[in-house]
Amino acid sequence: MAQLGFVGLGEMGSRIAIRLFQAGHTLTLFNRTRAKAGPLLAMGMHWADSPRLVATQSDVTFSMIADTTALHAITQGDEGILRGLSAGKVYVDMSTVSPQEIRELSAQVAARGAHMIEAPVSGGPGYVEQGKASLMVGGERAVFERLLPLLTAIGPTVSYVGASGQAMSLKLAINLSLGVQMLAFCESVVLAEKAGISRETAVEVLLKSVAASPMLAYRGPMILHMPERAWFTSAMLQKDMLLALELGRGLEVPLPTTAVMNEMLTAARAMGYAEQDFASLFDALARMAGVQVVR
Amino acid sequence: MAQLGFVGLGEMGSRIAIRLFQAGHTLTLFNRTRAKAGPLLAMGMHWADSPRLVATQSDVTFSMIADTTALHAITQGDEGILRGLSAGKVYVDMSTVSPQEIRELSAQVAARGAHMIEAPVSGGPGYVEQGKASLMVGGERAVFERLLPLLTAIGPTVSYVGASGQAMSLKLAINLSLGVQMLAFCESVVLAEKAGISRETAVEVLLKSVAASPMLAYRGPMILHMPERAWFTSAMLQKDMLLALELGRGLEVPLPTTAVMNEMLTAARAMGYAEQDFASLFDALARMAGVQVVR
Amino acid sequence: MAQLGFVGLGEMGSRIAIRLFQAGHTLTLFNRTRAKAGPLLAMGMHWADSPRLVATQSDVTFSMIADTTALHAITQGDEGILRGLSAGKVYVDMSTVSPQEIRELSAQVAARGAHMIEAPVSGGPGYVEQGKASLMVGGERAVFERLLPLLTAIGPTVSYVGASGQAMSLKLAINLSLGVQMLAFCESVVLAEKAGISRETAVEVLLKSVAASPMLAYRGPMILHMPERAWFTSAMLQKDMLLALELGRGLEVPLPTTAVMNEMLTAARAMGYAEQDFASLFDALARMAGVQVVR
Amino acid sequence: MAQLGFVGLGEMGSRIAIRLFQAGHTLTLFNRTRAKAGPLLAMGMHWADSPRLVATQSDVTFSMIADTTALHAITQGDEGILRGLSAGKVYVDMSTVSPQEIRELSAQVAARGAHMIEAPVSGGPGYVEQGKASLMVGGERAVFERLLPLLTAIGPTVSYVGASGQAMSLKLAINLSLGVQMLAFCESVVLAEKAGISRETAVEVLLKSVAASPMLAYRGPMILHMPERAWFTSAMLQKDMLLALELGRGLEVPLPTTAVMNEMLTAARAMGYAEQDFASLFDALARMAGVQVVR
Repeated sequence: MAQLGFVGLGEMGSRIAIRLFQAGHTLTLFNRTRAKAGPLLAMGMHWADSPRLVATQSDVTFSMIADTTALHAITQGDEGILRGLSAGKVYVDMSTVSPQEIRELSAQVAARGAHMIEAPVSGGPGYVEQGKASLMVGGERAVFERLLPLLTAIGPTVSYVGASGQAMSLKLAINLSLGVQMLAFCESVVLAEKAGISRETAVEVLLKSVAASPMLAYRGPMILHMPERAWFTSAMLQKDMLLALELGRGLEVPLPTTAVMNEMLTAARAMGYAEQDFASLFDALARMAGVQVVR
Repeated sequence: MAQLGFVGLGEMGSRIAIRLFQAGHTLTLFNRTRAKAGPLLAMGMHWADSPRLVATQSDVTFSMIADTTALHAITQGDEGILRGLSAGKVYVDMSTVSPQEIRELSAQVAARGAHMIEAPVSGGPGYVEQGKASLMVGGERAVFERLLPLLTAIGPTVSYVGASGQAMSLKLAINLSLGVQMLAFCESVVLAEKAGISRETAVEVLLKSVAASPMLAYRGPMILHMPERAWFTSAMLQKDMLLALELGRGLEVPLPTTAVMNEMLTAARAMGYAEQDFASLFDALARMAGVQVVR
Repeated sequence: MAQLGFVGLGEMGSRIAIRLFQAGHTLTLFNRTRAKAGPLLAMGMHWADSPRLVATQSDVTFSMIADTTALHAITQGDEGILRGLSAGKVYVDMSTVSPQEIRELSAQVAARGAHMIEAPVSGGPGYVEQGKASLMVGGERAVFERLLPLLTAIGPTVSYVGASGQAMSLKLAINLSLGVQMLAFCESVVLAEKAGISRETAVEVLLKSVAASPMLAYRGPMILHMPERAWFTSAMLQKDMLLALELGRGLEVPLPTTAVMNEMLTAARAMGYAEQDFASLFDALARMAGVQVVR
Repeated sequence: MAQLGFVGLGEMGSRIAIRLFQAGHTLTLFNRTRAKAGPLLAMGMHWADSPRLVATQSDVTFSMIADTTALHAITQGDEGILRGLSAGKVYVDMSTVSPQEIRELSAQVAARGAHMIEAPVSGGPGYVEQGKASLMVGGERAVFERLLPLLTAIGPTVSYVGASGQAMSLKLAINLSLGVQMLAFCESVVLAEKAGISRETAVEVLLKSVAASPMLAYRGPMILHMPERAWFTSAMLQKDMLLALELGRGLEVPLPTTAVMNEMLTAARAMGYAEQDFASLFDALARMAGVQVVR
């Protein structure tokens, strides 16, 4: 069994760490606020006082953080992961940042004789917990193949996408579909509702139709009962959409529905839904349609 | 076993008729061009020389046609279905037209002492063939319940939506999600492709992700190999989108992604894809992105 | 001086009638509600009891009504304008309806030996009053040339566009630019306002910029003080946008910004602004941006 | 007469420098490629070997450059403008960059005892040449008032907007209206053209209508004869749109038409129009509408 490290223990990170631990590996953890590590330490995982120490003590170090700023914080500087990497070690980042950033970081890792792959995840925390998440991997194929058993322990569907940065590009490309699907779903439900169909019936029948993606199967019902704790907030989705739109602009790919959905996310944030699950696009659209939403 | 009638034997209609026949019922058919009925008559179904005669000879008459004009042609006038209906008979329309039209037709049917329900279908011809289509039903609940065994013979998932016209509204609401999902999928794939990922890999990984609705599972691969015969053309989808947008305007529901997708359908038609499956949104978007599409 | 007729005395029609009267012509009027003709009769114009009688008593009959239904009401039937037309007479419709409708009506007029031209107007009621409106004319060029002095009396800029229906097409094409310009203007002002600039300053500077079209010069300030009486309501603009979008769909012209603006008009109507000037797009957008609008 | 400096002699910068020179002031110039300064030196302006030297030798230093990178290049470092500023001097930046950038730079200028105002320009090079450009000014009001005569020499309409960064915000807000107006104009013309109206007639009549903003008056005719040298390229407009959309996202202002237009700019770039005037949105839209554009 391998010596693994994990940096970043949010909704996603903590669940992934647990899956790796349950597969029999030893895990050393770091998180900005130590409290979040509590339940995991209680399960038998170990604590290290910095990202560097995690990397020093592990063969393979994983990270899962919120954005570019956080990625800099955990990788750069005296206490960053990079300092802890040396020949033969592997660093696996699972965060969603820009492909460019991944390529630059990958070069820094290579300069230390170590290897980096990126492994962004499709599917929310619930999906990870149930072992249903799918992973996309970018980086050297040989490294990917070596790590495959570890990655499969996280989720059953692991796809090698291509060179460094490409899995990230594909992750962003997939996420734009999620955002747009959700907004279209909201358009469907608000339309049905104003046609006299109850929201419950509309959701139920939609989720039996060929439009029912797995994402809609878990997020669609949220418009009936918004979860107390957001799986993926409007603010987080907009961060990803910003990356997707930047990628599109850079590669000269027009993204018309993404752009429109992104502005609806801005509207949702302006209406106060920034920290709610992006299922709150429903509430934003409903208000535009003059429908009262009571929560 | 029941005496059934079926008017309109296109891609969808003929497959639905076959399922009813295979369930052991007697079927009398009519279609504008008789040739299309050939294979079905060879299976043992019967021909009648007008929609009226179909209705006269059947307890329950089904119809599945392309648009309002065709619906008028088969229901109105001396040889229309209405003339063939009498007390106790049932008329089931499965076409996609406006809810308003359904309500008006339903009133005409009721005036003859007969009953009408609408039963639009979610899922393309392949889905019907495999017995996986889902039906939404609008009209009197008692009539719906009486017909349930027949409807279940067509597809396993049958949902009662509400009063006359409401199943049609929900069908339109669902179809807008299908169109938008497809365009978003195209945005995802073109973006991935210009990021250096092969179209095949992009499609494969997307269809393993939580974005993979059943519709995308069958339509997504079409962008790799466009089917010779369209399942649902850009022109047909735009007809439905027109109905959805009109419904939205009438009920005061803004439909931003639907509207944008609808203009892309217009672009697709202008580029020559009117009679191809609406998966050709991919080709239209790719051309906007300066990507050459060789078919 | 000519014997003129005028049917339809709304905000636009009454002002146009006055301009023709002030140019020295004799006018016979009809309006569905006679009360609106009061002030004009007091100025010396005459009343007739039906559109047919107006046409019978006039060499040139003008009409300016709200929509297709109204156009049918004043032209068809025993008391319609058509019955009053005979060889040599001219009928000038200034309403905004579909080009197809104009072509059909024009054929009916020709069948009576009379001539029809369409002369839709660019510019609101205030513009007509100040003699600044511009007219687009469709129909036979010879008829247009004969009527030029009359048309110039209405507004100084009269452009011959082409065959029957083409001026209408161009009118619709222009109106879509008006709607989109207004929404973009609202985006500009809300953005400036949330950047800390007062709404007054934003409007003032925008109206000094190269973006300041004559339409924005009169409609822009409405977002500071919404006029008591709408010049052109959101509902009326949406009627025109429907015609423009239908034309685009028919001619295979994608209209992306028009489509998006049209959905914002739906949102504006859903929020209660249907009967306010379409400057109320500002209020709708501001609400989407979480800005409180006090009127 | 004042000792003025000017850094950045592109299409806009060189014309502004000429206007200041013609108003009787002494000008010292710097540009990355000296060749562009040739004609201006021949008129009697002076050269300095760095931005710092320009600032050292001038009471008021103006700059007009393309983007953030260029702004850093001319202001920061040993040879940057900042080093040449001292107590009492004024720095006027006329470029279009982010408001945030302006505020940071302004603080750096203040730290040297000098003053900075931003003065972005509305109107293209032709407008500046004809003395018709309008300026928006942000920064301390007292400094603005002191500089008013200089600014008025550039263009007759000078508006004080507010604190540092606010004129830039307003400039971005105005530019989004320009981009959207142009795309809507293109929708109008393509629609008219497919309705059988010649492109020339459509442009001519549109430019007589109330939609004809000054920007459309000069840019509209470009779709008939694309200028050899772009006034403002699609790539440059998209840079501004990126800033506007970022500002909107930051301030929580949804910008639906801007977002859609921005994706059309991406399409235009993908089709090869990046370095053409953004009037080439017409060609991009026309191709989407299946219209052949021969240039």
